[in-house]
Amino acid sequence: MVRVAVAGASGYAGGEVLRLLLGHPDVEIGALTAGSSAGSTLAQHQPHLVPLADRVIEETTAAVLHGHDVVIMALPHGASAAVAEALDERSVIIDCGADFRLTDPSGWQRFYGTAHAGSWPYGMPELVRVGGGKQREVLAGSHRIAVPGCYPTACSLALAPAVADGQVQLRDLVIVAASGTSGAGRSLKPHLLGSEVMGAMSPYGVGGVHRHTPEIEQNLTAAAGEPVKVSFTPTLAPMPRGILATCSAPLAHGATGDTVREVYEKAYADEPFVQLLPDGRWPNTGNVLGSNVLQLQVTVDERVGRVVVVAAVDNLTKGTGGAAVQCMNLALGLPEGTALPTTGVSP
Amino acid sequence: MVRVAVAGASGYAGGEVLRLLLGHPDVEIGALTAGSSAGSTLAQHQPHLVPLADRVIEETTAAVLHGHDVVIMALPHGASAAVAEALDERSVIIDCGADFRLTDPSGWQRFYGTAHAGSWPYGMPELVRVGGGKQREVLAGSHRIAVPGCYPTACSLALAPAVADGQVQLRDLVIVAASGTSGAGRSLKPHLLGSEVMGAMSPYGVGGVHRHTPEIEQNLTAAAGEPVKVSFTPTLAPMPRGILATCSAPLAHGATGDTVREVYEKAYADEPFVQLLPDGRWPNTGNVLGSNVLQLQVTVDERVGRVVVVAAVDNLTKGTGGAAVQCMNLALGLPEGTALPTTGVSP
Amino acid sequence: MVRVAVAGASGYAGGEVLRLLLGHPDVEIGALTAGSSAGSTLAQHQPHLVPLADRVIEETTAAVLHGHDVVIMALPHGASAAVAEALDERSVIIDCGADFRLTDPSGWQRFYGTAHAGSWPYGMPELVRVGGGKQREVLAGSHRIAVPGCYPTACSLALAPAVADGQVQLRDLVIVAASGTSGAGRSLKPHLLGSEVMGAMSPYGVGGVHRHTPEIEQNLTAAAGEPVKVSFTPTLAPMPRGILATCSAPLAHGATGDTVREVYEKAYADEPFVQLLPDGRWPNTGNVLGSNVLQLQVTVDERVGRVVVVAAVDNLTKGTGGAAVQCMNLALGLPEGTALPTTGVSP
Amino acid sequence: MVRVAVAGASGYAGGEVLRLLLGHPDVEIGALTAGSSAGSTLAQHQPHLVPLADRVIEETTAAVLHGHDVVIMALPHGASAAVAEALDERSVIIDCGADFRLTDPSGWQRFYGTAHAGSWPYGMPELVRVGGGKQREVLAGSHRIAVPGCYPTACSLALAPAVADGQVQLRDLVIVAASGTSGAGRSLKPHLLGSEVMGAMSPYGVGGVHRHTPEIEQNLTAAAGEPVKVSFTPTLAPMPRGILATCSAPLAHGATGDTVREVYEKAYADEPFVQLLPDGRWPNTGNVLGSNVLQLQVTVDERVGRVVVVAAVDNLTKGTGGAAVQCMNLALGLPEGTALPTTGVSP
Repeated sequence: MVRVAVAGASGYAGGEVLRLLLGHPDVEIGALTAGSSAGSTLAQHQPHLVPLADRVIEETTAAVLHGHDVVIMALPHGASAAVAEALDERSVIIDCGADFRLTDPSGWQRFYGTAHAGSWPYGMPELVRVGGGKQREVLAGSHRIAVPGCYPTACSLALAPAVADGQVQLRDLVIVAASGTSGAGRSLKPHLLGSEVMGAMSPYGVGGVHRHTPEIEQNLTAAAGEPVKVSFTPTLAPMPRGILATCSAPLAHGATGDTVREVYEKAYADEPFVQLLPDGRWPNTGNVLGSNVLQLQVTVDERVGRVVVVAAVDNLTKGTGGAAVQCMNLALGLPEGTALPTTGVSP
Repeated sequence: MVRVAVAGASGYAGGEVLRLLLGHPDVEIGALTAGSSAGSTLAQHQPHLVPLADRVIEETTAAVLHGHDVVIMALPHGASAAVAEALDERSVIIDCGADFRLTDPSGWQRFYGTAHAGSWPYGMPELVRVGGGKQREVLAGSHRIAVPGCYPTACSLALAPAVADGQVQLRDLVIVAASGTSGAGRSLKPHLLGSEVMGAMSPYGVGGVHRHTPEIEQNLTAAAGEPVKVSFTPTLAPMPRGILATCSAPLAHGATGDTVREVYEKAYADEPFVQLLPDGRWPNTGNVLGSNVLQLQVTVDERVGRVVVVAAVDNLTKGTGGAAVQCMNLALGLPEGTALPTTGVSP
Repeated sequence: MVRVAVAGASGYAGGEVLRLLLGHPDVEIGALTAGSSAGSTLAQHQPHLVPLADRVIEETTAAVLHGHDVVIMALPHGASAAVAEALDERSVIIDCGADFRLTDPSGWQRFYGTAHAGSWPYGMPELVRVGGGKQREVLAGSHRIAVPGCYPTACSLALAPAVADGQVQLRDLVIVAASGTSGAGRSLKPHLLGSEVMGAMSPYGVGGVHRHTPEIEQNLTAAAGEPVKVSFTPTLAPMPRGILATCSAPLAHGATGDTVREVYEKAYADEPFVQLLPDGRWPNTGNVLGSNVLQLQVTVDERVGRVVVVAAVDNLTKGTGGAAVQCMNLALGLPEGTALPTTGVSP
Repeated sequence: MVRVAVAGASGYAGGEVLRLLLGHPDVEIGALTAGSSAGSTLAQHQPHLVPLADRVIEETTAAVLHGHDVVIMALPHGASAAVAEALDERSVIIDCGADFRLTDPSGWQRFYGTAHAGSWPYGMPELVRVGGGKQREVLAGSHRIAVPGCYPTACSLALAPAVADGQVQLRDLVIVAASGTSGAGRSLKPHLLGSEVMGAMSPYGVGGVHRHTPEIEQNLTAAAGEPVKVSFTPTLAPMPRGILATCSAPLAHGATGDTVREVYEKAYADEPFVQLLPDGRWPNTGNVLGSNVLQLQVTVDERVGRVVVVAAVDNLTKGTGGAAVQCMNLALGLPEGTALPTTGVSP
């Protein structure tokens, strides 16, 4: 059995990691830690995790986390570095935070305002790279993995195949994505109150200023082999979970609906967690609720000469906690899909 | 491996049964059948069941269902009897419909208007019975089981311990229950449209006229050993899944908060799928989404001399599909909890 | 023109008062005040009140509120007394808080824990009283009015006619009510976050401990002419607005479905804001969204000998802000229904 | 008093028209007509319109509609032409359907498949046109007006000022819009059921095939004075009402954030129903629920050289019924804003 600690066990991401770990046949759940919630039982924060109801949350310290085979961190952005530094090099550390995702220190600086902690292997196994190959290759056996953000998961997997294969021009890439409220975590902010959220949609962070923009651009740049920029508008939707990302880009000269589709079919043919839908069916966040699957449809709008890709993903599962477990499986050499649902809870 | 067919695979209940069966290590999914949906792929009706996307739905006939070890029926009320009759006696049949739940033909006649098909062992393992014992005992090895309705599951498990132990008087039992919309199935009725449902609550079937009333009364009568009637008001809540049942009854002479609590603790101490919450915490349908757990809290309101029990359950999981799999496990002698989640998908 | 100040303009109740006042032909909106929001524009808190977007919120002080014909207070419970004391006796003061609702100081003490401020005429015009007559009579021309709570509005108007006329026995009165989240105000509490609320129902304050219980009992006691107690269970529903209250009580000897209905028809025949629905139709919170109407249905469940009344109301309109404006109209001798919508915003 | 008939009174659009007309001081509501609902009372279809509860719906025939000063039609697309033909030329006819919106018969043919009925003055008063001027000018006194579609309202008012003034290049215009479910009317389709809609987002009609695409392009073409095409992706959001449209286009050479903002400020300075928000605040469909206001924000993303405009509107009010009343007011020479709310019902 692999002993796994979860740091940040009282938040949404930590809760999702635990939900999945409870179904993992090779895992024994070790220490659960948090900040201000330390000392309380898990049931006070995660009443849905019935089998762990009476577990007491400990403080997030190196001493408590020490000695686990794996530590999954689901901490506020900026808090992971200090914890990671204090842990044994032999422990596998999977970080759900943003701290180790960006390779460019200036991007981190601009959006997070603190010193850049460095970058770890990026935990998006299905991401295609220029010249062929996928990100999965660098993850097997890695002891440090940075789990992608939820928006970047949806947007990068949606656009990377077309970008990597030259099916689109690298200008006027436009992404409009709707996210459920859990993407903002359990933050006590007025605009996240049920009364304000239900029945309402609104944008935020328009115009390149959202923290996930550099991460998306980093991924697409890696896919293209040259700099890519995107217009990214995130919106808040009246649902607890789910991201629906609508991504489009100008069709490259010579590309057609057929060539585009072929590229996506090839990219994701053997991916159990990316489902390219057949013609005429559309992704739906409801279909992937609680599942580790990303649903995808791609079409070419010939009237305006643009490729349109729509992706649906559960921001907490494939978008965070599921990705963390998937990365852990890869790091440990376990079957990649262990404990990862491929069915949504629907309706 | 046990070969299981699902009749009614295109509906909500059938979909939930399949979602759970996909995680069952001893089950091979056999024929999927339906009525008007026959001939289409499962993905057209259950796009969330990714691993079964390309399976073709067959027509619900004895020939198609023949030869399976288990047939789980999730058909419209009244349709099960004809199918069941045509099947081999050696097959285990689990019926999610109402057809075989009621022992009193007149109750069936009144609410369903057709000839009574008979009654099968009632699939609520945790139901306490007068004089001790639980319903589970009659289910092990049974070849025919009637899965309870979703409202009766919440209401009966909420009240039966107090009723069976004489902690409440058998008059003025009042139940007000809120259900998510999937309880009504995939029916194309105006009041079930998203536009009408979201942001709105309304009652229906007030005054003893709801079809689930006789089933609740049958269960409580069995628990009491004498006739019990209830005032039952179901309401429709703006959520896809979940039932929250608020049940109350006059405290019996001599009973107290302590004696009542003790009775519930004893009744459910060893039940993995019934969670009696500690003082001060309340059930929440969000906690049990997609889970086979029923959450329960019981309190005595001494000012008015009434016991109040509140239960939360996922109508499609513990309320239907999970109960069906639980019954199947019992019928086959498998560990009762196989493939049944004890964690909700939350938030 | 009547000059009206609103104290507590940045909250949900204050916002609803302003929304209605903007449509009032006899009203000029004067000072808008608040606590910590003072100094900001109204648009930062009430972006839906477009015509008042640039109005600056002042601090809630006697000096600012002085000189208005009417002051409507929508302050946190316990904050009204100090403000009211400092205001001119000639000003009409309408208090949306609980401070002046309860006549019994011990009830206040128990639920709010501070000194009792006293009681003002209770602003529920349609409330029937034992021996005939309605609460409206004491409101005309009154200079101090306490606006009822939202739950008490739904529950009292639902049960009072039967109680006042002796159609029900005064024992085992049971109320289970579902409320939208705005009933809790703009409080930054985790269980009010959209992520937790959407798709979920839960009870709170079970067992007589909810602050609104004494107010409901005070109203029904006034209707009965003798002490009445109720079992009251409030639940939180996944919608921003609306209360659906299901209320029942044992049928009195000699009472029948016909006598009960007649009593309700008589009680509300001339009430523009209480709509007794014809047989077979049920109240729906969606029907009364943003409206000052309370919808009602009453039925007798002869099987169990209980009267069941279901009421739907918008907690912010008829439940708070609309009631405040209705009271103001009565106090000023204006037509009672001025500026009060009788149509919901639906779907 | 102006006598107004509403054809299609049982649908969502007809209901919204009636809700607004009930508050119109110059209007007397005449005949209410429908198709299959004829003979029933309005309360059976529009239970929120309390003052009209007992009005009986008549059949939609010329005889019934004859003799009214105004006929507002809210019929299924394709049904208006026959009715309109049979009516007196002196009646003002306001058509909420699509029949008379498109000037190009081939566009109609392609998307609706029937003979083109012709085109009427287009009822979007605030639409700017190339060379200055607004669409309002052609509406005053007109006896036939085609009310715009809800998506085209949000998208055209969002982009037209920039397009008309040359602030954007006329290529790679991208619109992604989320709509509440009432935009689809009261259609009994599985994907519109509450169970499927709540908690889920999905796209539909991707790739230029949505019926509203030619209407948006027609408006932008009129604004530009040369052909404009858009990439338009509509998505379905879990809310009853509201459209949030995110629209972007490449910044023109020489244009800047300042010039763009200036153009929008000038375009909408005097428009009571278009609210350009100050920097830093974003439109929210919740703010405009039940209101005739469209909220707008515009920004320039200099990193990628695109103008991004986000608009929020209530699809049933400013998007349909409110626009119809606004057009009626203009046609009759009444103050344009009569009976049109400028405040949303929020939260």
